[in-house]
Amino acid sequence: MSSTKIDFLYLNEEEMVKAGVTDMHRCVEVMGEVFDLMGRGDYVMGGKNHNSHGIMISFPDEPEFPNMPKNGPDRRFMAMTAYLGGRFNIAGEKWYGSNRDNVEKGIPRSILMVMLNNADTGAPEALMSANLISAVRTGAIPGVGAKYLARPESRVCALIGAGVISRTCFMSLIDVCTKLDTVKIYDIYPAASEKLAAYIRQNYPQIHTIELAGSVEEAVREADVVNVATSGKVYPRIEEEWLKPGVYVSLPAGIDLDPDFVLNRARRVVDNWKMYEAWSDELQYPYHPIMGLIGTYYLDWLAEGRMTEDMIENLGDIAAGKIAGRKNDEEKILFGMGGMPVYDVAWGHTVYHQAKEMGLGTTLNLWDKPYLY
Amino acid sequence: MSSTKIDFLYLNEEEMVKAGVTDMHRCVEVMGEVFDLMGRGDYVMGGKNHNSHGIMISFPDEPEFPNMPKNGPDRRFMAMTAYLGGRFNIAGEKWYGSNRDNVEKGIPRSILMVMLNNADTGAPEALMSANLISAVRTGAIPGVGAKYLARPESRVCALIGAGVISRTCFMSLIDVCTKLDTVKIYDIYPAASEKLAAYIRQNYPQIHTIELAGSVEEAVREADVVNVATSGKVYPRIEEEWLKPGVYVSLPAGIDLDPDFVLNRARRVVDNWKMYEAWSDELQYPYHPIMGLIGTYYLDWLAEGRMTEDMIENLGDIAAGKIAGRKNDEEKILFGMGGMPVYDVAWGHTVYHQAKEMGLGTTLNLWDKPYLY
Repeated sequence: MSSTKIDFLYLNEEEMVKAGVTDMHRCVEVMGEVFDLMGRGDYVMGGKNHNSHGIMISFPDEPEFPNMPKNGPDRRFMAMTAYLGGRFNIAGEKWYGSNRDNVEKGIPRSILMVMLNNADTGAPEALMSANLISAVRTGAIPGVGAKYLARPESRVCALIGAGVISRTCFMSLIDVCTKLDTVKIYDIYPAASEKLAAYIRQNYPQIHTIELAGSVEEAVREADVVNVATSGKVYPRIEEEWLKPGVYVSLPAGIDLDPDFVLNRARRVVDNWKMYEAWSDELQYPYHPIMGLIGTYYLDWLAEGRMTEDMIENLGDIAAGKIAGRKNDEEKILFGMGGMPVYDVAWGHTVYHQAKEMGLGTTLNLWDKPYLY
Repeated sequence: MSSTKIDFLYLNEEEMVKAGVTDMHRCVEVMGEVFDLMGRGDYVMGGKNHNSHGIMISFPDEPEFPNMPKNGPDRRFMAMTAYLGGRFNIAGEKWYGSNRDNVEKGIPRSILMVMLNNADTGAPEALMSANLISAVRTGAIPGVGAKYLARPESRVCALIGAGVISRTCFMSLIDVCTKLDTVKIYDIYPAASEKLAAYIRQNYPQIHTIELAGSVEEAVREADVVNVATSGKVYPRIEEEWLKPGVYVSLPAGIDLDPDFVLNRARRVVDNWKMYEAWSDELQYPYHPIMGLIGTYYLDWLAEGRMTEDMIENLGDIAAGKIAGRKNDEEKILFGMGGMPVYDVAWGHTVYHQAKEMGLGTTLNLWDKPYLY
């Protein structure tokens, strides 16, 4: 009978912090492992092509029913599911609801949970508050990209947008680009730029110069590394000539670039092209107005016959050594990312095991003996 | 600050039982409400057409990696997501892993969890052991169908397959068809039939005749209500002439019928045709070999030009009074069902509120004040 007993561990946000969920250096390492596994193919996500981002509930613009949620900024529920192999060998999902109105209540726009499950039996192993899993793993990906795509001698970093995502992206970029000494910040809200500058000044003494730029151009010119993470539906316009040869442009959010540059003179790397292919099946052309990522521009341009798939490279293939990372000091490399459940599962798994070692969390019993089987 | 605090309730299987999860009479009532809401349109599920069953992780037949799960019977992970309106006004999901090998370990084939979330903020309200939610809500649907599609004077019930699903389906059928007095059971394993017979004998004294039939034909002939719930990939063959005029055939699982009968002389009702349309997008023709439901035969026959969509009726439209239920005592009605996350959310919500009233469960704190927002 004892063998039929199932327990699992619950970790609230405070326990996640104690167990190291905010450790960006470790997260960049773990996300590097994830890309290597993806490049080898040792993972399975949901959907027809096994590479779906997840399943979304979205709401009508004009609901016919009084209680039904109404479409609005970030208004959705989403389940993101994955199996990840290698030393992880774990299944799991992230499930969240999102509503920008939450912020007025002092709670996050999205409220996220991760559950990890035994890959063999499906039994729950852990349930975790996942707001920090999500924020930190999202921030880590630009750093993983930088490892393969930025020039090692990069010194100047431009941060376009000064919110939480820019902050966490910077944390991973400086973890990898250890020679960074100058940061240029642009945000349409100067107070946000000042807040991010203060954070960097306090935590990264090696950054001897922090500039609050008056425009995107001012921030981007001379930058070796550019990270764009603004919210809202107007994407920052960046002209080709502002971008220095050898630049690494990390794109966790939308951007407005000249297609002629993107298609003919940039190098185009994404987190996982198959996920965009899954989106092309799950959403409808034109894709970019639905989700403003550079990868959804690629979907539109493919549909329009303006590009071919062989023009797009996967970071996983680079991490697994199948194709080359940066080839020379001249390439202008654009790294687009859309987020994947394999990240949440990997980072959740890492923090869960740390928590278990530290004796953190609440053990929950599912059953001693199942009622039906 | 107190307003930013988020707590939610955890209910294990034992607490779910105490809170009434096995109350089939109540579940049939609640599922009736669900079909009424579905007929009105007051719900949203996931995916492109807002009617997806869910997102599935399935595994390769021959994995290239030592740890990767291998495709096998019921081997999958699945997230099923829904918003349900009316008095429920709740979002939620069922997440589970499934592997038939579990049974050898004394644990259920599938291990299921339901989470309910505030429809406005997305905050978790409850996490529940969902094996019984799932078993009971699945069993309830034939009863809801019977309410609209069976003859009120139905006396003889045939149960094809004698497992857990047959038992729970019978519980809902007898809840609705109160004049049933005879049950005929057929299963390829006589021991299973005997077990189900013993259960019915013990719990339903109004059933004065229980027959263990020697064949499907013997069970089905003279039956007013037929329920087919066998597992395995060989579906029970039922000939048209075995089916009595006025029969109600409830199909939670696969069946083998003459297409000429189904297409030309039966009435075809399903739980929600839009969900099958979503499957036609998520899976690939031919659909029936992937998922052996009568509804996936309809998808194949539509693809082959053998039928048209107007030949299929939704139980929700009947429950909401948009179209008629049973029209006469001659119709042979086939009710096909595929299962939907709205059921899990509705039944989970009902049991959760009962548990809260009874003071059951473990309150879990997500955070008092979020770390980031």
